Amino acid sequence: MSEVLRVDAEKLQAAVAAIMEKEGVAPQDAAIVADSLVSAELTGLQSHGVQRVKFYTDSMEAGGTDPRCRIKTIRDFPGGALLDAQGALGIVAAYRAMELVIQKAKDVGIGIVNVRNSNHCSCTAYYIRMAAKENMLAIVSSNAPKSMAPWGSREKYLGTNPLAVGAPTHGDPVMIDMATSVVARGKIILADKKGDSIPEGWAIDVDGHPTTDAAKALEGCVLPFGGAKGSGIAMMIDVFSGVLSGAAYGSHIHNPFAHPEVPMDTGHCMIALDISRFQDPEEFKTTMDTYRSEVKGLKPAA
Amino acid sequence: MSEVLRVDAEKLQAAVAAIMEKEGVAPQDAAIVADSLVSAELTGLQSHGVQRVKFYTDSMEAGGTDPRCRIKTIRDFPGGALLDAQGALGIVAAYRAMELVIQKAKDVGIGIVNVRNSNHCSCTAYYIRMAAKENMLAIVSSNAPKSMAPWGSREKYLGTNPLAVGAPTHGDPVMIDMATSVVARGKIILADKKGDSIPEGWAIDVDGHPTTDAAKALEGCVLPFGGAKGSGIAMMIDVFSGVLSGAAYGSHIHNPFAHPEVPMDTGHCMIALDISRFQDPEEFKTTMDTYRSEVKGLKPAA
Repeated sequence: MSEVLRVDAEKLQAAVAAIMEKEGVAPQDAAIVADSLVSAELTGLQSHGVQRVKFYTDSMEAGGTDPRCRIKTIRDFPGGALLDAQGALGIVAAYRAMELVIQKAKDVGIGIVNVRNSNHCSCTAYYIRMAAKENMLAIVSSNAPKSMAPWGSREKYLGTNPLAVGAPTHGDPVMIDMATSVVARGKIILADKKGDSIPEGWAIDVDGHPTTDAAKALEGCVLPFGGAKGSGIAMMIDVFSGVLSGAAYGSHIHNPFAHPEVPMDTGHCMIALDISRFQDPEEFKTTMDTYRSEVKGLKPAA
Repeated sequence: MSEVLRVDAEKLQAAVAAIMEKEGVAPQDAAIVADSLVSAELTGLQSHGVQRVKFYTDSMEAGGTDPRCRIKTIRDFPGGALLDAQGALGIVAAYRAMELVIQKAKDVGIGIVNVRNSNHCSCTAYYIRMAAKENMLAIVSSNAPKSMAPWGSREKYLGTNPLAVGAPTHGDPVMIDMATSVVARGKIILADKKGDSIPEGWAIDVDGHPTTDAAKALEGCVLPFGGAKGSGIAMMIDVFSGVLSGAAYGSHIHNPFAHPEVPMDTGHCMIALDISRFQDPEEFKTTMDTYRSEVKGLKPAA
């Protein structure tokens, strides 16, 4: 189960794209999905890598995901738009939203594009990199099916609602890309597949007791990071991504395993910001290079 | 020291305004400062209440804060602006920024207004309420003088960089308003003034050891909330508020106690978002009312 395989990234990407196309996904959309999943593998984020392929093909075959990805514009305004993914692959919907919000930010300095009726959009860092290439700051968030008890409760209501925020430098962007749970649910899924146990503090079982059993954790609740503060951030992500979009929110998002025949109805929120409206982007990136090296140069904790 | 005094809010507000005016603050600006500080008291946030008055008057007398609050527009674009506070009272600068960003969001759907060369802007929830009254979602952040060790370090670099995010309902806004430290430094300042000890886990002393002594904690480092994730959020707040504005950032922000004669050069970032571009705000607020009651109705933790 835990053997290491070495595979060529380009070949892996072509294989993922071919699988998607076989399901009826258009070549340009299949290429986006393949690029996202293989990029996640290349940056060490296996939990958001090619292990997700079967999840997507299962969903397309069950009807929850529409391989045609017919993304519809519901509202359009100078600083943003609202898209209806109509059950498209979440990665494709989020990619189109980021393309559009970059254009909006070029037009007026900042943009917001939200998506409703979507599915799993995978690694949010991917969209931050798209923005960083265009000298833009970005904030990307999505809601997700319930798996987490809000702070002070023992009942699932929130998803592990991911948040990514990033800024360009002259090298890799400086960014955060995080689930609002103590760990991403994907890491627990991976541990469960590998038969590994998980550290205490990551999750509680169905009865509300701490567990180190990945399978029991998946049945139970993931815990929010940082107590009340992390729980509040997860909730505001749900408001910005779900409520504002007219997507499902909180416990109303469809669980794709329980209801594979319908879209999850997740919402995504993409905000991009054109640095050139504030200062020369080259100067900004030089400051960010300095920022990174200053932080790296601090005395380490004991 | 810990006696409870009962005072009339309106009288307190008039007294604060009078003190500000005596320092040379214009009546309309003095009223903003008084309203912010007394609102903080009324919502139970003593740490951002009238205890700050002396800090502001000291700073005006030392030259670090300019009572004239001559806020200058550096950049202006359809979706936002960059303001130079020129050492104004931070509350006044942030108030003007929120007024302007609400207008930008009305114009194009979303707006960002950043401020540089500012001082302490006090309670960030105050600005969220301004936006919520206009049926807007808002994100408000500021950087602050170094007091916190980034995750993995034992050296001060980050401020307790506050973040507030909120959404209107038919009642009080749903919002988070938090320091990115385990607790706001203001709470430690208050404990120190009262001679109270603080719980372990809030801070480390100058040598990097956990401390329950408020005075030693103020000399040492406050810890970020939520480990690496909270530390990363504090850093991105610094990038959006400080670096993007051309304000100071990280350890470069002036400590007002060490250098009372110069502005702190903090940066603030205000983002506002017009809900009506996405859906009927009344419908949005009804969904938020439901959201709040669903979360309140969850089974409590053991």
